[in-house]
Amino acid sequence: MEFVVEVDRLKTVMRRSPLIAANRLENDAEHSWHLALMVCVLAEYSDQPIDVGRTLQLVIVHDLVEIYAGDTFVYDNEGAKGQVARERDAAGRLFALLPDDQADTFHGLWEEFEAHATPEARFAKAMDRLQPTLMNFNTGGGTWHTPGVTSDDVVLRKSVIQDASHVLWHYAKRLIGLGVARGWLAAATDSAPGELAGGDRNDD
Amino acid sequence: MEFVVEVDRLKTVMRRSPLIAANRLENDAEHSWHLALMVCVLAEYSDQPIDVGRTLQLVIVHDLVEIYAGDTFVYDNEGAKGQVARERDAAGRLFALLPDDQADTFHGLWEEFEAHATPEARFAKAMDRLQPTLMNFNTGGGTWHTPGVTSDDVVLRKSVIQDASHVLWHYAKRLIGLGVARGWLAAATDSAPGELAGGDRNDD
Repeated sequence: MEFVVEVDRLKTVMRRSPLIAANRLENDAEHSWHLALMVCVLAEYSDQPIDVGRTLQLVIVHDLVEIYAGDTFVYDNEGAKGQVARERDAAGRLFALLPDDQADTFHGLWEEFEAHATPEARFAKAMDRLQPTLMNFNTGGGTWHTPGVTSDDVVLRKSVIQDASHVLWHYAKRLIGLGVARGWLAAATDSAPGELAGGDRNDD
Repeated sequence: MEFVVEVDRLKTVMRRSPLIAANRLENDAEHSWHLALMVCVLAEYSDQPIDVGRTLQLVIVHDLVEIYAGDTFVYDNEGAKGQVARERDAAGRLFALLPDDQADTFHGLWEEFEAHATPEARFAKAMDRLQPTLMNFNTGGGTWHTPGVTSDDVVLRKSVIQDASHVLWHYAKRLIGLGVARGWLAAATDSAPGELAGGDRNDD
């Protein structure tokens, strides 16, 4: 119960994505619920069969470490440095509030999500990348307006969606293309894509 | 996708419960995520075996109708009138955004939660009642301070927890008793318990 009370703090970890339904930013708890709902609706588009219940557990747990480690913006070079170590420490602290067997279970869920090696983890990660794309598209651009970000950066960052679902990847690319066409996202430049942001493990 | 975008509005449906981690009220999306996390942690306390994945789907979906029907406060007589009809209309409108087969699936999940007839639905409902109890206890009383509410009202309203788990019901009663002892909740009076609030189906 101490753990159940402590995780209330996920509701106070703010993301960069704007809500569609209100003029404010989203928090991690709302985001995690939205991913879970998307798993229920979109699971049939997974290229490989997935265990929906397991996938739900992955998305419900995946951001908990940010309670202590904070949210790292996907297009933030500096913040990405040390993110792995910061989140590992956070997982250790947070899951230590659980009985040993459950600490192992939750650690396992978090590591499965991060490792991107099972069909369930790949689909969970795809939801984690698709959801902010939907938020950006439905708010006239959202974080796409970040200075220096181009469509190449976005495509690179979102390309993990294709590891889970070719249908949803096709859909995401279409939204990104429309974002460029509508002037909400800078078109790709001659610079190498992805130069702006370090690593490929951020959550937005 | 139209449905996935529309349900963003759940993040704007406010509840009466205060957050533990911040000085503001909780919204339905945060609440639904918290229930899902609690299912992952507390499923082992169910008196009957439950399918965790199914139970997660129930809690993720259970409040969606409030996007159109609004949240009805558990200790609100007047609001409870017409709540059933209001929520049924809302379900019809909202789930109509989905393809027919998925509309049936989501309708089925919502009705299963409301009917309280399966072990999964009973456990989901128990989480829905236990979570605000935790929030109240950890914020010095929360909605227990509502004028006219006594410990009998709370015990009556929370007693569905015992249909799912005698361990968690014992725990909830202990929190309620401590709430009275600490002056956060009025002790039972001679009036018949439950007179204040109509029905037993509200969500807090």
